[in-house]
Amino acid sequence: MISRGSKITIVGLGLLGGSYAKGLFNAGYKVTGIDIDPSAIEFAKQYNWIVEGGDDVNLVKDSDIVISALYPNVFIEWVKENQHLLKPGSVLTDVTGIKREVIQQIGEVLREDVEFISCHPMAGREFRGIQYADPHLFEVANYIIVPTEKNTEKGLSVARDLAKVLKFANVTELDAKEHDEMIGFLSQLTHVIAVSLMNTSDNSHLAEYTGDSFRDLTRIARINEALWPELFVLNKDNLIHEIDNFTNEMQAFKEMLENEDYEGMKEKLITSTERRKAFDKKVPR
Amino acid sequence: MISRGSKITIVGLGLLGGSYAKGLFNAGYKVTGIDIDPSAIEFAKQYNWIVEGGDDVNLVKDSDIVISALYPNVFIEWVKENQHLLKPGSVLTDVTGIKREVIQQIGEVLREDVEFISCHPMAGREFRGIQYADPHLFEVANYIIVPTEKNTEKGLSVARDLAKVLKFANVTELDAKEHDEMIGFLSQLTHVIAVSLMNTSDNSHLAEYTGDSFRDLTRIARINEALWPELFVLNKDNLIHEIDNFTNEMQAFKEMLENEDYEGMKEKLITSTERRKAFDKKVPR
Repeated sequence: MISRGSKITIVGLGLLGGSYAKGLFNAGYKVTGIDIDPSAIEFAKQYNWIVEGGDDVNLVKDSDIVISALYPNVFIEWVKENQHLLKPGSVLTDVTGIKREVIQQIGEVLREDVEFISCHPMAGREFRGIQYADPHLFEVANYIIVPTEKNTEKGLSVARDLAKVLKFANVTELDAKEHDEMIGFLSQLTHVIAVSLMNTSDNSHLAEYTGDSFRDLTRIARINEALWPELFVLNKDNLIHEIDNFTNEMQAFKEMLENEDYEGMKEKLITSTERRKAFDKKVPR
Repeated sequence: MISRGSKITIVGLGLLGGSYAKGLFNAGYKVTGIDIDPSAIEFAKQYNWIVEGGDDVNLVKDSDIVISALYPNVFIEWVKENQHLLKPGSVLTDVTGIKREVIQQIGEVLREDVEFISCHPMAGREFRGIQYADPHLFEVANYIIVPTEKNTEKGLSVARDLAKVLKFANVTELDAKEHDEMIGFLSQLTHVIAVSLMNTSDNSHLAEYTGDSFRDLTRIARINEALWPELFVLNKDNLIHEIDNFTNEMQAFKEMLENEDYEGMKEKLITSTERRKAFDKKVPR
């Protein structure tokens, strides 16, 4: 387990970074926070989630574990600019939602005496900012570790311990290709669907008639517009492939409807009902 | 309010008919049930939701209020075959999920001395059958009354009173065209999306990685394959229009992604986030 004396620094105190800070504080760790927004630092200090913090990158010095909770491209830039400050032998980890590009770019530039272990905590909310931080999010969420051949047992155990300390419901490992394919389908395609459904027409006058179906399908249409286009573009190949598959499936259903093909539609509904059952069983809560 | 002495008959004791029976029983009414399935009658009798029942259509005689909880086409056939048994001056209502076709066809054939007031309780579950009956469904649901020029104040008040007795969260009126357009978008399109997303590929191996996004979007992919193709076909024009609008919107997003049009995608996400807020506020629970 991560020693209580370890110096842990979180770079980026937004919703996720803040939730990490609070979760680590709850577990008895002393955390340093770095953020360019003084109000985020102030907020974290006020609740003692961090013992020290500010916008000075030198705060990262002497850290045994550095957790980046920055957006992917900002994270890559941050490493390029500030990696000379990292402590030899330290472990660097992240929370980014796409992996191939991040792992490749960080791998190309990072010092050999710092180990990067890339992780994806699949947790989020429709709100952003440290004021919505809540480590309870993790108790129903997956924590995915994406190791490469460069990773050592030490790096892996830091990642696993972090997931345990933060009480993630489930910890698994995938390679970067598998991760990005999975995310392209389960997360990115679903968000594009929700956004497109919400944008299809201005139906706010229908709000009073709305049942759970429409509400469930569009919950994630409240989305962080600063982050997600970046995630989409960094996984463009997979996401375009999934959008094509999905719209082809919609098109096939539409043709059955046009032809009043009752048997064909019935088959589709039986298949979807059967498949959905697999997703009922394994709910982690 | 509907008099406690009224004779109320429910035709079709499935999930909805059963929930009506239980709700009316809870409110102190004596209900008669008609169903071709003896086990449904048995179930309803066992809990005293109905005082008498069976498969004999003659049970409908002397009923002041007849509630059909049959599928649309079966309902239309039932009226054609059995309307001679209805009591002069009685009120007939239904639960069908599409309205233009039902109202037109019933209107063409129904005796002049019986009033049909068409209603749509927007409540349901992913399961079917009286064993899943639960009038608590209504406490978070909309009850839509779809009056025509043939309806009288008496018919309207029976519909309104029924909604009140069954404790629906919200009661509104729409005409048949407005109703079917609304349902085509809010309910039918969302179900086709959920089914298509589930059917896009067999991703049951991804179940362990699934967060709430995918689970929320596919909950309604568990769907009654006997009922919905009928509802889709009976609202074909509206549903095809909505599928086209939606897939065009998906296509536009895909083109932005292909072109790495960050600003365009950002605008889409801002719009969807803004619009979704309207649907947050009016949750009836």
